Amino acid sequence: MQSDALSQLSSLSSDQLQALASALTTEYQAHKDKGLKLDLTRGKPSSEQLDLSDALDGILNGDYTTANGTDARNYGGIDGISELKALGAEILDVKPEQILVGGNASLALMFQAVMQAHVFGFNGPESAWNKETTVKFLCPVPGYDRHFSICETFGIEMVTVPMTATGPDMDQVEAMIKADSQIKGIWCVPKYSNPTGVVYSDDTVKRIAELAKIAGPNFKVFWDNAYIVHDLTDTPKTLANIMSLAEAAGTEDSILQFCSTSKISHAGAGVAFLNASTANLATFKKLLGIGTIGPDKVNQLRHAKLFPTVDALKAHMKKHAEILQPRFECVLKHLNEAFGDNTLGAWESVEGGYFISFDTQPGLASKVVTLAAEAGVKLTPAGATFPYGKDPEDKNIRIAPSVPTMDEVDAAMAIFVTCVQLATVEQQLG
Amino acid sequence: MQSDALSQLSSLSSDQLQALASALTTEYQAHKDKGLKLDLTRGKPSSEQLDLSDALDGILNGDYTTANGTDARNYGGIDGISELKALGAEILDVKPEQILVGGNASLALMFQAVMQAHVFGFNGPESAWNKETTVKFLCPVPGYDRHFSICETFGIEMVTVPMTATGPDMDQVEAMIKADSQIKGIWCVPKYSNPTGVVYSDDTVKRIAELAKIAGPNFKVFWDNAYIVHDLTDTPKTLANIMSLAEAAGTEDSILQFCSTSKISHAGAGVAFLNASTANLATFKKLLGIGTIGPDKVNQLRHAKLFPTVDALKAHMKKHAEILQPRFECVLKHLNEAFGDNTLGAWESVEGGYFISFDTQPGLASKVVTLAAEAGVKLTPAGATFPYGKDPEDKNIRIAPSVPTMDEVDAAMAIFVTCVQLATVEQQLG
Repeated sequence: MQSDALSQLSSLSSDQLQALASALTTEYQAHKDKGLKLDLTRGKPSSEQLDLSDALDGILNGDYTTANGTDARNYGGIDGISELKALGAEILDVKPEQILVGGNASLALMFQAVMQAHVFGFNGPESAWNKETTVKFLCPVPGYDRHFSICETFGIEMVTVPMTATGPDMDQVEAMIKADSQIKGIWCVPKYSNPTGVVYSDDTVKRIAELAKIAGPNFKVFWDNAYIVHDLTDTPKTLANIMSLAEAAGTEDSILQFCSTSKISHAGAGVAFLNASTANLATFKKLLGIGTIGPDKVNQLRHAKLFPTVDALKAHMKKHAEILQPRFECVLKHLNEAFGDNTLGAWESVEGGYFISFDTQPGLASKVVTLAAEAGVKLTPAGATFPYGKDPEDKNIRIAPSVPTMDEVDAAMAIFVTCVQLATVEQQLG
Repeated sequence: MQSDALSQLSSLSSDQLQALASALTTEYQAHKDKGLKLDLTRGKPSSEQLDLSDALDGILNGDYTTANGTDARNYGGIDGISELKALGAEILDVKPEQILVGGNASLALMFQAVMQAHVFGFNGPESAWNKETTVKFLCPVPGYDRHFSICETFGIEMVTVPMTATGPDMDQVEAMIKADSQIKGIWCVPKYSNPTGVVYSDDTVKRIAELAKIAGPNFKVFWDNAYIVHDLTDTPKTLANIMSLAEAAGTEDSILQFCSTSKISHAGAGVAFLNASTANLATFKKLLGIGTIGPDKVNQLRHAKLFPTVDALKAHMKKHAEILQPRFECVLKHLNEAFGDNTLGAWESVEGGYFISFDTQPGLASKVVTLAAEAGVKLTPAGATFPYGKDPEDKNIRIAPSVPTMDEVDAAMAIFVTCVQLATVEQQLG
């Protein structure tokens, strides 16, 4: 039986391997012949999820006035309307005065924050990172390609550190930071990490909150809390509050926290939040005020109407979970059935976020992505979850099942599984 | 009679001057006693103008699909939706493929463009302005304070050049650029210039389009066409098309043109346009794609519905003019009555835009602004229309009459006129 054979690949004879490869090739060809066009690439909400927020357009009923009487239509107000500052503060469990509400992309706030630190400095021109010969960032891997692109753009050298089941390997992180004052930052997606789905443990969060104590000057933690309310279960893991831990340790100026409604309301038309210390926020606002006339307050007001309380927002997220959860279950079912009793693949069960991170045996990820593409299943390019697009072991593949229908996820995963099996057996054959 | 006396101030005796000052002080005190609170500072649309676009919220009727079938709600598309590219192209009379549609602020696109040129370069890292020891910009004065702030932020040295009735003094501009290759850019508001209201002549536009031929490498014209459709009369002056002139001269890579709907729809919730050569646009999009997930396409779609054609947009602008024109007329009436037959003030008749630029006699602008503030009329700080906030002759004051009601403009201008008269007579007294 195929499943038995796959669980003891290394003990198979050359003939047995050959027979297995031949059976898998037939299976692969059969998939290919269906001529499907499926896509498991980017972490976008599906149309069905976007429909949940369609009340946004028209929700103002002609009343463009904010809670404190501001005309949302006109210029003015660099840090957003007060009702959304309050909402952001509740989501992140921080003080409203430590919140800035931006435009439609937290990525824009992250880029702006790196630019602030690198080009202008958070503590005057002399604190700008670009005053130093080399600037490095710690990048837990696998991680998020758009974080890496920002570093690459500013010429920041990326140093990888492995993810564990509790977050980045903190012994390594601390040792590296102690040894090298050129390390100026670290990227973190602390809840349902992109792509591994890991939730950082309380101990990890505390140690990250205190990194500034052992780091060189002007060290910043980029805390991308993109999935803080994106639970798939009713009993989600909790994430420790990095800002209060940092405040307790006196390191709050090292924390820059981000989140957005991109995967809550409309992905391209949401609102983004920055949480930072009062000092950092003042600096950030000053530069932002040079580069824009302020965020779109009308869209912020729409969001305040759609989510009048954080409870309303959480109830809304349950509807997302109802749509997403079966897709994740389907992916996990295929992986369990195919690889539950062998070593061809490794992954974590996922309780939130948008991704499942899958590791093939070393050296096979690119091959699997190519095989899948040829059989009509588009996957994120192998290596995309690593800085510079280079996965040193060529084993990580990010699976994003939110956009396709259930039937499509099912069909795509059947093909994916065959591709992994075929690639592994062919490697074994040499 | 006061008006006779003011027209021959220099020939008055000390006693006559003293009597005049005393009469004006009484008049000023009477204004002060009314305890008014009026504001002629920033160029914002009034509520009445904003109301014109209130159909925006709800205009989609549940249909979030763009002309080419894209779901506007989701991620994707760094350069905006095609129907708005077409609209921007019609407004500026350029090719749609030379248009990028951004978020709610053309200022953000300008900042991004300066950052691109200064930090990253439009032609690779070696072309970045910050590779040079000194970078200078030509700033026609009086001009727009937010342009100057961007330069100051990037440490770009600002060199002033005087405005004439046909635009910047082009003989000076060309001579300065020929003599100094450190001059890397020039700020221009070519139609209804902020604050003078000047429309650049055809000859001026052509000479600016061709500046790159005599400038050092990587020279850029920042062409802020903020008021291109903001006419106050039915027979507006036309502005030559800088992009076609530049294309004819082979200098199109030196032109970066901006405009927005900020003063067309909702000031803080509009859409912004960048027009640039194909090469520049590709470079710009690459960096923009690192720093954001793309503009808010839902809001772009709303604007496409509100302005399905450029004619619809122009009809809409006539309604703005109906609201604005009487306010400008009121300002000009006061200025003509008070200073039409003397040399106490100089200004231009204005046919569009948001401002009237007023020159006192040298050394009096700050004094007038202070006197007006004490009598309840807030004016833009003297000097704001010059780089670094320093008007060397201390004479320019920007008057912005769009926000107050007609009665308020009338009352504010009566006070303003008295302040100018009083300050001038007191200066004469020594």
